[in-house]
Amino acid sequence: MNLDSLLPNLGEWLRGTGPESDVVVSTRIRLARNLADLPFATRATNAHKTEVIGRAKDALAKSDAALKLEYVDIPSMPVLDRQFLVERQLISRELAGGLDGPRGVAFDPTETASVMVNEEDHLRLQVLRSGFALDEAWQDIDRLDDALEQRLSYAFHMQFGYLTACPTNVGTGMRASVMLHLPALGLTKQIDKVFRALQKINLAVRGLHGEGSRAFGDLYQISNHVTLGKSEAKILGEIREVIVTILQYERQARNAIMKERRQAEHDRVARAIGTLGSATMITAEETMELLSAVRLGIHLHLLDGIPVTAVNQLFIHTQSAHLQKLAGHNLDGEERNSARAKYLKTKLRELGSHK
Amino acid sequence: MNLDSLLPNLGEWLRGTGPESDVVVSTRIRLARNLADLPFATRATNAHKTEVIGRAKDALAKSDAALKLEYVDIPSMPVLDRQFLVERQLISRELAGGLDGPRGVAFDPTETASVMVNEEDHLRLQVLRSGFALDEAWQDIDRLDDALEQRLSYAFHMQFGYLTACPTNVGTGMRASVMLHLPALGLTKQIDKVFRALQKINLAVRGLHGEGSRAFGDLYQISNHVTLGKSEAKILGEIREVIVTILQYERQARNAIMKERRQAEHDRVARAIGTLGSATMITAEETMELLSAVRLGIHLHLLDGIPVTAVNQLFIHTQSAHLQKLAGHNLDGEERNSARAKYLKTKLRELGSHK
Repeated sequence: MNLDSLLPNLGEWLRGTGPESDVVVSTRIRLARNLADLPFATRATNAHKTEVIGRAKDALAKSDAALKLEYVDIPSMPVLDRQFLVERQLISRELAGGLDGPRGVAFDPTETASVMVNEEDHLRLQVLRSGFALDEAWQDIDRLDDALEQRLSYAFHMQFGYLTACPTNVGTGMRASVMLHLPALGLTKQIDKVFRALQKINLAVRGLHGEGSRAFGDLYQISNHVTLGKSEAKILGEIREVIVTILQYERQARNAIMKERRQAEHDRVARAIGTLGSATMITAEETMELLSAVRLGIHLHLLDGIPVTAVNQLFIHTQSAHLQKLAGHNLDGEERNSARAKYLKTKLRELGSHK
Repeated sequence: MNLDSLLPNLGEWLRGTGPESDVVVSTRIRLARNLADLPFATRATNAHKTEVIGRAKDALAKSDAALKLEYVDIPSMPVLDRQFLVERQLISRELAGGLDGPRGVAFDPTETASVMVNEEDHLRLQVLRSGFALDEAWQDIDRLDDALEQRLSYAFHMQFGYLTACPTNVGTGMRASVMLHLPALGLTKQIDKVFRALQKINLAVRGLHGEGSRAFGDLYQISNHVTLGKSEAKILGEIREVIVTILQYERQARNAIMKERRQAEHDRVARAIGTLGSATMITAEETMELLSAVRLGIHLHLLDGIPVTAVNQLFIHTQSAHLQKLAGHNLDGEERNSARAKYLKTKLRELGSHK
């Protein structure tokens, strides 16, 4: 697959549509699966891993549900391309660079489904959906999982369920995570309260790039901790309920901002655009923070003429690897900050002139 | 005098020309004078003050050197107009509002010379010059002083010199002050060191609006403390020497910035313009800070198409009273912040389209 063909697209997770997309950016479900008769990744030799890849590719090629998934090899891929796939949420940072040995990922051109091979587990199936779409994501991934299971023998225990390399994934092997944009809860200083409540009910909160990453741009991933002792349907039901509550909180906070300090918020949003369009050097992190203000401004109807899809394009194209692929060559940190600023200035000028 | 006729002008102190005008904004000398046979202002009745005004007006009208000075009465002047004169550096905050009783000011239409009547002293003569111009300012004020002295009997003591309401002004009654723009010393954290050195040699450092005012926009007034026991020429010579040294420091700091972090400075300046042109609410203080960056950017040749005079116009026209006179009516704090932002956006757009 030529990754460059993906570059102009937003990918599924930033499509900017789907249910509740004023707050919910995307929904993701992943399933951890392992082959029964091969050592788990932590103990597997490269030969074992190559065997896993062979079987996975074969199963993918013969499954109707996986027909459009194309496999790409990671170790032979330039570092920049791996980072590009991380930024598009198609592979994990670990698969990109934290691991050694044979490994890869299969994904479809619409970027909704992917299967990582020889990440922490032999297989990590993933389905991504724009907006709040747990049911649809579940149906898709369940179908993909069933299709692969017809051709692969999964490590499965009658009492424990699916067996996984790390015990925290045993059982369903499922992690459902919902990416939320929560700027108003941040502005009104309620975000910590919300997160403390989530932790009490065993849900995890993480930043854009998963475990340990900071929540830049007011983007938070909320996901289940528990994979054992509950059915997939029950876990999904619990998450759905919590997300609906957080949605209400965020919208209440947005209403409060509009009621109590509309002018100040309008000023903040206008300045964010001003800075994005005038800086000559800017980091990815600051760009995300400012785009968060712009995104909120759009949903609060404080801005005309900038569609959410434009914000999403600025967001993805100013990530480091995307920026370098647009430039056509590698850029060091300072060069990236300059190139990012130039890109933003040009695009915002285009948007301004279309108004 | 119709103050509205001054509104489009920059006034002398912001003319933006004159020697060393990349660092020195303006030079000011004032002389404190009192009439010999009337009680000083602290003990004068309103009748005495009216008498002072009468004599001052008469002397002004009959002096060739003061022919162009026109007297305006302060108590009958709207508060907004008084504030307007403060912003143009023609009268003190005290004359505008801190004092009671009959008082006023005479000044010429080019705003280089003014005589405050019944401020702390009966007369406060002032000459303003754009740039670093101690000699020229001294010649002007000396001529004005001589002309008035021909018609007024000053309180003068053979040993002490000119007598004044406050003992700190006795002697020459002279305060020479130079307004400097020192952004690079601020950015390179050397400004405090410079000021400690100044205090040791008995020079005072103050902000834009005199005693007790904060130094917004990296503007500092440096002036002599001592008025007694030295000739005017000696005091002026000492100040000149110090200013020349500070000029060198500031220029060294500017060179260091260009050598060591040109790109970061360019970014800071570009963002300042971006914020000035995009904010929907902005205070006078923040405006001054941002305009300080723009002013430095011009002198460092980081900016094209914006002349210093345009920055000076933005500076003076975004001061509260100027803004309200431009609007044609009083504005409360929030309205001023909105009107200021609108003015800046419009003017910067005009400047941008002329590029």
